Amino acid sequence: MGKRLVVVGGDAAGMSGAAQARRLDPDLDIVALERGTRTSYSACGIPYLVAGDVSDADALVARTPEEFRREHRIDARVRHEVTAIDLDARTVEVRNLEHERTFRLGFDHLLIGTGARPVRPDIPGIASDHVHGVQTLDDGTRLLDVARRSRCRDAVVVGAGYIGLEMAEALHRWGARVALVEAHDHPLARTLDPDMGARLVDLIGAIGIECRFGERVRAIEPDRVVTDAGPARADLVVIGLGVEPEATLAEAAGLDLSVRGSISVDRRQQTSHEGVWAAGDCADTFHRVSQRRVHVALGTVANKTGRVAGVNIGGGHAGFPGVVGTAITKVCGTEVARTGLSTAEAERAGFAVATAVVETTTRAGYHPGAEPMVVKAIAERGTGRMLGLQIVGGQGSAKRIDTAATAITAHLTAADVVELDLAYAPPFSSVWDPVQVAARAVLRSV
Amino acid sequence: MGKRLVVVGGDAAGMSGAAQARRLDPDLDIVALERGTRTSYSACGIPYLVAGDVSDADALVARTPEEFRREHRIDARVRHEVTAIDLDARTVEVRNLEHERTFRLGFDHLLIGTGARPVRPDIPGIASDHVHGVQTLDDGTRLLDVARRSRCRDAVVVGAGYIGLEMAEALHRWGARVALVEAHDHPLARTLDPDMGARLVDLIGAIGIECRFGERVRAIEPDRVVTDAGPARADLVVIGLGVEPEATLAEAAGLDLSVRGSISVDRRQQTSHEGVWAAGDCADTFHRVSQRRVHVALGTVANKTGRVAGVNIGGGHAGFPGVVGTAITKVCGTEVARTGLSTAEAERAGFAVATAVVETTTRAGYHPGAEPMVVKAIAERGTGRMLGLQIVGGQGSAKRIDTAATAITAHLTAADVVELDLAYAPPFSSVWDPVQVAARAVLRSV
Repeated sequence: MGKRLVVVGGDAAGMSGAAQARRLDPDLDIVALERGTRTSYSACGIPYLVAGDVSDADALVARTPEEFRREHRIDARVRHEVTAIDLDARTVEVRNLEHERTFRLGFDHLLIGTGARPVRPDIPGIASDHVHGVQTLDDGTRLLDVARRSRCRDAVVVGAGYIGLEMAEALHRWGARVALVEAHDHPLARTLDPDMGARLVDLIGAIGIECRFGERVRAIEPDRVVTDAGPARADLVVIGLGVEPEATLAEAAGLDLSVRGSISVDRRQQTSHEGVWAAGDCADTFHRVSQRRVHVALGTVANKTGRVAGVNIGGGHAGFPGVVGTAITKVCGTEVARTGLSTAEAERAGFAVATAVVETTTRAGYHPGAEPMVVKAIAERGTGRMLGLQIVGGQGSAKRIDTAATAITAHLTAADVVELDLAYAPPFSSVWDPVQVAARAVLRSV
Repeated sequence: MGKRLVVVGGDAAGMSGAAQARRLDPDLDIVALERGTRTSYSACGIPYLVAGDVSDADALVARTPEEFRREHRIDARVRHEVTAIDLDARTVEVRNLEHERTFRLGFDHLLIGTGARPVRPDIPGIASDHVHGVQTLDDGTRLLDVARRSRCRDAVVVGAGYIGLEMAEALHRWGARVALVEAHDHPLARTLDPDMGARLVDLIGAIGIECRFGERVRAIEPDRVVTDAGPARADLVVIGLGVEPEATLAEAAGLDLSVRGSISVDRRQQTSHEGVWAAGDCADTFHRVSQRRVHVALGTVANKTGRVAGVNIGGGHAGFPGVVGTAITKVCGTEVARTGLSTAEAERAGFAVATAVVETTTRAGYHPGAEPMVVKAIAERGTGRMLGLQIVGGQGSAKRIDTAATAITAHLTAADVVELDLAYAPPFSSVWDPVQVAARAVLRSV
């Protein structure tokens, strides 16, 4: 009889880990417990479901419990909630939500992939029926329903993070009058420099989305949202205030916690307890540039860290080297991306910082598809080492962030980036790629 | 009185160098001599001019002689052909093509940017009026004229290199029936692996362009091209058989030559003669992966090497570290890119090679804009070092080659690439970027 792996949470991190462990260890008994109704779905796809880009919720499901059972011999059970972890006894307490029955399950390995929960501040009216979160696929289908009904004429999105921006686009495309309310002065305030944020505000405003930045929500009423600057009509409110790690179970079990209450893990994704692993949005991770522990709730990290945990559980050896802080999104035709450290993050991490902003185009200037593109490069003064890059621009601009993410990972300097052999043809780029134009500009002040 | 720089050839390499030298040395006397009628134009833009994407030929001109004179105090003269270089006397012999007058000009520094000339094999009929090259802007305007006249119903493009593919698209979009004739079995034969080339053939064929690969042209007749497999109707023939370095002047002057007859230069772009520099398509360069001298005729390299020469001429210090072999193009909706070494190139360079091909999509599979994308990764057996990557796919696929170009430059392994923090959101990518999917696949066989 093989050992047993119990997976808590049936989404990206947990199920990547389970599938990887299965690949390495065919004898492992694997039980995956998910309190919701679905496994392994793309939470990042929810805004596109709501926007109507994706035909139906099932399209976002990468693998059903049946597929996990059939193709991977993983006993994946939905509507099963783990309610407690006993580290000494090496058991979990499980509640079958269908049959209201509780049982215990022993484990040799435990993989915690409990994800994150949306931040819900204590605002009067936030629990009303017309206030929606965008966390689960069920949230998404409910929202799609509401958006489709043309009753909804006025929508307020609270929070201009990635999900907030994507939801503002989705509702705008359904024809709603959308106001975006954000306490900070600009969108993506935690990750984008203020000057780049200001450019994004201009572009979002030009789409026809009302930008109400620097306003705090005081109350949500049946037909409006009241901020400290006044009311905004709203028969639909979407809350996109970010997430925090869901580590309640881990904390109660006595596992060490880390930044923002995430579960502390090592390079192998092992928690403070031998044979107990955590991955994805519930765990902390390492930032390769600041060299600090951070909490990053992104699908890419969940997939990668889940896979690393799975390799180690399956008897292999893998380490997750960390993130460099890459993120990307779009609002209608405007794309935005960032990687590395922002100016403020770099300064907090102890770097002396040089920056440069360049205005360029996505293609050769004379090519009809060329759109404006602004790039900000952040480098270390003295060494010239690339620390960060930010992009706001038209179609085809943002994914170039990968060039910078790769350069930053490899510790390249701005001079190295200028010398890179990047692809050029008029429909794809200017002859000096915009990332190189920015690197050349920052060179002058390092 | 400052020293004098004479520039031979008024295009990307020469004029980048001249402008850069001016920036560093305000006292330099700079004379740039161009035998054609224009300076500093985008030769890479010619297919897009012919396609009708670009409004007129002037749009492709980055800077006119007047602008060079006014903004950079560079005495840029068109219709001036350098006919000889005397290295000992440090003079050039110049023919003013307007006034049929010849004079000598002394130099302290000489920058040779004579570019490349199109390969024109000795085929009967190749000098006919309906046979066009695509080298100069004048070629482009002539071709645009012909393409516009709907007389042209049948076009044959000879050569399926980058320019050949781009011209096939341009003529196809004007409604011509286009046949692409190529002696090799697949397009981009020198740079793309045969299996990736075969995929490209399928996609080009699906567009409606007749692919006649593995056929050699025997004769060009007034209304047809005759290959060894039979005739192809043609009232317009475009020759896109690549280029060879234009080093006639340099050779006659006694400068050392290198691969394919290009001018031999060092890291600073200096030729075998002190104070005589060469850059762009006429010079050789260094391949950072094969570590061999190569000849690469691309606008990016011309701009970069011209700039390096200019820095050194202006009294600064700069070195060009070389290329990694990046190139990109598209044929209608099909994009293609490559970087590093092909499988054959890697083997010739002495690497033990592992390869993997993956079929993936440009965006999250469920996103409506997702298009097929095939990626081939080439890595070194044993070390896992990334040696090359090739992409054939739909819109948004090819520019990702930059991730691989950066990784290869930084000597990253396939495992390093899998760990990169690349940007993901459903409209931009699958959660594992296609480049990483390919790297993960090749890991299994290194």
